Amino acid sequence: MDLEKYLAGKTEAVNRGLSALLVKEGDYPQSLHRAMHYSLFAGGKRLRPTLVLASAESVGADPDSALNIACAFECIHTYSLIHDDLPAIDNDDLRRGRPTCHKVFGEAGAILAGDALLTAAFEIAAGTPIKDKGAVIRAIAELAKAAGSTGMIGGQAVDIESEGKEVPFPVLEYIHIHKTGELILAAVRCGAIIGGAADEELAGLTRYGQAAGLAFQIADDILDVEGSSLEMGKATGGDEKKGKATYPSVIGMEESKKRAAELVGMALEALSGFDGKADPLRAIARYIVSRRK
Amino acid sequence: MDLEKYLAGKTEAVNRGLSALLVKEGDYPQSLHRAMHYSLFAGGKRLRPTLVLASAESVGADPDSALNIACAFECIHTYSLIHDDLPAIDNDDLRRGRPTCHKVFGEAGAILAGDALLTAAFEIAAGTPIKDKGAVIRAIAELAKAAGSTGMIGGQAVDIESEGKEVPFPVLEYIHIHKTGELILAAVRCGAIIGGAADEELAGLTRYGQAAGLAFQIADDILDVEGSSLEMGKATGGDEKKGKATYPSVIGMEESKKRAAELVGMALEALSGFDGKADPLRAIARYIVSRRK
Repeated sequence: MDLEKYLAGKTEAVNRGLSALLVKEGDYPQSLHRAMHYSLFAGGKRLRPTLVLASAESVGADPDSALNIACAFECIHTYSLIHDDLPAIDNDDLRRGRPTCHKVFGEAGAILAGDALLTAAFEIAAGTPIKDKGAVIRAIAELAKAAGSTGMIGGQAVDIESEGKEVPFPVLEYIHIHKTGELILAAVRCGAIIGGAADEELAGLTRYGQAAGLAFQIADDILDVEGSSLEMGKATGGDEKKGKATYPSVIGMEESKKRAAELVGMALEALSGFDGKADPLRAIARYIVSRRK
Repeated sequence: MDLEKYLAGKTEAVNRGLSALLVKEGDYPQSLHRAMHYSLFAGGKRLRPTLVLASAESVGADPDSALNIACAFECIHTYSLIHDDLPAIDNDDLRRGRPTCHKVFGEAGAILAGDALLTAAFEIAAGTPIKDKGAVIRAIAELAKAAGSTGMIGGQAVDIESEGKEVPFPVLEYIHIHKTGELILAAVRCGAIIGGAADEELAGLTRYGQAAGLAFQIADDILDVEGSSLEMGKATGGDEKKGKATYPSVIGMEESKKRAAELVGMALEALSGFDGKADPLRAIARYIVSRRK
């Protein structure tokens, strides 16, 4: 399959969905909506919503039925970047090749834009146009849990606390699994839930999502060392400067690459019971560690 | 009816609900959960969740069925206070008689605690134990819309932009209706939706919620001028110092009091078709403008 074409198609679908489902940029209050759109349409990879759609497809569902949930994941991912970049947290000036949200709209504007995207995610998710309302509620609950204080925000909290400290491996793994892995896992699971997955399908996709989520974060750590600022669209080498615990800094670069490759193998193995409809998920797992940005 | 006793009973029910439904204070990461609990259990009035429960009661439902939604409203109200108090926004040191969240847990800690409470609201709401899943989704959608960029956050954005400026009356009313009124209206509506309200009941409660929400904010503005810091548990007179547009500053104190009293009358009128089960809502409308804090 042609992954590049597949990703481009899904990115276009997600961008169309976000434009249709989110409040318009020109709506009052305009500064707030401009800030939301500025960060949401900044050329992100749309990995999480694409995983939602690919997962729904893998169990035979129409991906359009999962478009609301897909867009909700992207809203949450984008809000987390806006808040992470704030001066009080990571204090980053550059994101996706452009000044960060608070650099353009001020700190207050960025805090509110992040809050608004997080809130919009649940309004959009609630609008999912399928008959099985129980599945919609289950997806909303999984999204909220994965993004919450024992998921993504929990990982971010431990990450901040660990800056400049010697971090034991279990804490590093906690940070990575929670800060990035949980939302990627939830994206895969929610696509399957909305798609009406059977229990054993959901179990396989859960194993896939766990492996792919951790592989993604290890690859991100590696890219922060080896990637170029130009390709990444943000300052690289930032983890080391901030004294952040990363896979390369704790277990070394070679071991990190080995671990990422093993996780891709585990992700593919988890899909062994799936037919060709899971090929996009297979290709995405390989792409996660081979990408240059 | 004995309103004081009623409010105390509902506050206890909401506190029990929050303790049961929210992640525990001692759970990992502890600093994050401590910050969430610190602000959530700071002696708030629990007005919004009480309105959810009283509204469910007014249409004959068991208030326990609406306890999840009630707690979700309190989580969202508390998150909004944490973020509003941040140095980049209102820069307040005192809230409910105690140092604000960022004063105790730092700015990053307060941003994340707010994000986590906002996210938890939707996980808790999704756990609503009623059979009509369509009603749960409707309530989630209304909560998200009321709290979002065209609701509460929109009001906050315009409020920040308007600081130190001459504010025309329509802008002042936009700020008040959106910053406070929308969430109070949504609390009344969501209680009714979860309680299985008929269309004409929901219409009456909507008129009640609109009037009560605006009356609440006008009363808040009046208290900021006339209330004592000791009773309010926060610095008073802050609106004037910050050059904030308020009802007393734009239409005068007497006119503000007259308008608040009129709105209470409208709220009571909207409940004319309801029986004694709406007495708590009636008493709350009167309390909103007579309270000292």
